[in-house]
Amino acid sequence: MSKVFVIAQGGGPTAVINQTVAGAALAARERYPGSRILGARHGVRGIDRDDYVDLSTISETELMRFANTPNSGLGSTRDKPDATYCQRVLAGLDKVGASAFIYIGGNDTSGTLDLLDKSAGDHIHFIHAPKTIDNDLVENDHTPGFMSAALFVANAFLSVDLDFRAMRGVYVGIVMGRHAGFLTASAAAWRRDETDGPHLVYVPEVPFTEGRLIDDIRATLDKHGRCVIAMSEGVQTADHKPLAESLIPAHLHERDAHGNLQLSGGDLGLALQEAIKDDLPGVRARVDTFGYLPRGFIGAISAIDQAEAFAIGRFAVESHEAGSGSVAQTYEDGRTVLRMVPLAAVANRTKTMPADFLTAEGNHLTETGLAYFRRLLPPRPDAWTPFV
Amino acid sequence: MSKVFVIAQGGGPTAVINQTVAGAALAARERYPGSRILGARHGVRGIDRDDYVDLSTISETELMRFANTPNSGLGSTRDKPDATYCQRVLAGLDKVGASAFIYIGGNDTSGTLDLLDKSAGDHIHFIHAPKTIDNDLVENDHTPGFMSAALFVANAFLSVDLDFRAMRGVYVGIVMGRHAGFLTASAAAWRRDETDGPHLVYVPEVPFTEGRLIDDIRATLDKHGRCVIAMSEGVQTADHKPLAESLIPAHLHERDAHGNLQLSGGDLGLALQEAIKDDLPGVRARVDTFGYLPRGFIGAISAIDQAEAFAIGRFAVESHEAGSGSVAQTYEDGRTVLRMVPLAAVANRTKTMPADFLTAEGNHLTETGLAYFRRLLPPRPDAWTPFV
Repeated sequence: MSKVFVIAQGGGPTAVINQTVAGAALAARERYPGSRILGARHGVRGIDRDDYVDLSTISETELMRFANTPNSGLGSTRDKPDATYCQRVLAGLDKVGASAFIYIGGNDTSGTLDLLDKSAGDHIHFIHAPKTIDNDLVENDHTPGFMSAALFVANAFLSVDLDFRAMRGVYVGIVMGRHAGFLTASAAAWRRDETDGPHLVYVPEVPFTEGRLIDDIRATLDKHGRCVIAMSEGVQTADHKPLAESLIPAHLHERDAHGNLQLSGGDLGLALQEAIKDDLPGVRARVDTFGYLPRGFIGAISAIDQAEAFAIGRFAVESHEAGSGSVAQTYEDGRTVLRMVPLAAVANRTKTMPADFLTAEGNHLTETGLAYFRRLLPPRPDAWTPFV
Repeated sequence: MSKVFVIAQGGGPTAVINQTVAGAALAARERYPGSRILGARHGVRGIDRDDYVDLSTISETELMRFANTPNSGLGSTRDKPDATYCQRVLAGLDKVGASAFIYIGGNDTSGTLDLLDKSAGDHIHFIHAPKTIDNDLVENDHTPGFMSAALFVANAFLSVDLDFRAMRGVYVGIVMGRHAGFLTASAAAWRRDETDGPHLVYVPEVPFTEGRLIDDIRATLDKHGRCVIAMSEGVQTADHKPLAESLIPAHLHERDAHGNLQLSGGDLGLALQEAIKDDLPGVRARVDTFGYLPRGFIGAISAIDQAEAFAIGRFAVESHEAGSGSVAQTYEDGRTVLRMVPLAAVANRTKTMPADFLTAEGNHLTETGLAYFRRLLPPRPDAWTPFV
């Protein structure tokens, strides 16, 4: 039976988000021959504007080239539809006769789908396909896009730690992550023992103070002669405000349509660099802001991440007849399993790192935490421990 | 005939600097059986302190593991010896009976060697083995370490350009480079036409003004809807001062032993982000500082760079009997050729990008410039041009 599938991408791009589009398109073509498969440009905005790519006619070879290319090839959006916008999107979906709308994104995207689902009739099913480098979707063991971003971060910290063995000092790498510290914590995945960096890991889950930072750095320098730090750009002070927010002048605050403050690692980085220079005079200190580099780096994509993202697209199509829902990727008996959960279970909720991932001091990972990241990443590359 | 070779690493680490150590050590073992091969820890500092790693006894397998590991595994230094320090280093070399000192580094390192050579007798030969991610050594077509760092930068800009097609705006990636723009310019190596990013390339070779930047960005946004910029952290104003220097409060200026201002991309980045926000209100703008990430990233090392760095180590040993000198890597008849040039020809000099690499507007590369970077990098990874 031929159908009409609409597929779109929302929120921040990832290295593997196009895999999910390709997986869904190919599954739809196999299962429902003769179907129309429409890729909406820039998420719901494309539906509102009747702006589609026809994915029905592209060869499988070309679709796989598309799949293997990082970052949202259909375009993305951060639009969060209100009731009126929702009605326009529903009208757009009806106009093309859609039987399913598969929307690939994070918690904001699942929120949009939940809203659409509640306003629509039963003739169309809304399927949320997960993706986020933040790894912060509830109901999921891990999310597509995270492994690849984490692979970049782990590679970066292994490399920078070797660099700072050669010439000692303090290094801070600021990593994306507003509420959840998963991506920052992946910096420690390949750490073998306490001599390896990162020596300190600061995440939004643990309240942060500048004084504590300086004490931690001093203690690490005393012990190891250098100090490599992984820090989330969303680290928070005890009053639950992002540290960056208290450091950036109010007139520079910029919020997106979801009310999220746009945090730039640069602001935080500069403030940190000055703090370290003031409190640890004479110590060589460098702060880099990774920013967008980890999230779609074509030079280091996780093959497992690619395969899982593709499988999620297939699963979305294969499961859509049972009704609306969110595809969840769980880990059971040593393997990744896909199942469908209610949209409301995922919508607008944020998973943070479990408390047992972090040490009592809150500045590093426990063995439980490390085991999680090691499971998701390939083995540590062979690297000689420097002679110094 | 057995000899004593001293090998050391100076200046910033690279992804392939240990290849040169391994190449030299293995050549010395083959050519001069029974020789002592001493790796000085932290450059000349190790010679001054009689602090060596014995590279004579390490297995070939282990030496190759060391070779394949990025960043100076013997430790590095930015010490620039004065006359007294030189005498101590010469005494140290005599103490171990060195017949050759192979020092791997950039222009500062070759300057140190030139100084040592002029103060020493003929019983010891000083060989400079080139390395620098800045690619700024005269007499060389390109320098070991550059290809790998450039590979990171090219990967990063291809990826970020795909990211900014999905959600439009202005992106600035700030790349290391104090005087020479080679590493920044490698961002454009995989650009196919003017629609691909980076759309603007700013290097220290061309005087920079903030007003010009904003005009360039406006024109690019009008044309392509997004603007991806590669900028050297050493971009200079018309009075030949680093832009960062004029933006950073004087009390934060920090200079190394060579008198180089320590530029952090973060300072420049924050200033740029504010300028763009002020002059282009409502435009999504992000600035990332790549900092140390490109220079020893274990996840994307150029195989040709590795092989060339290894060959330079071998050549240093094979050529040392002819006297002191600097190994130069030239490009002749379509291949890389090694030869020895006088230390004074390289010492303390800086190669910048040839004028014909840059367009008349000074904000991008010419075909001549692009051809150079394409020759040094592997082919562009297959990437689907997004549907938006």
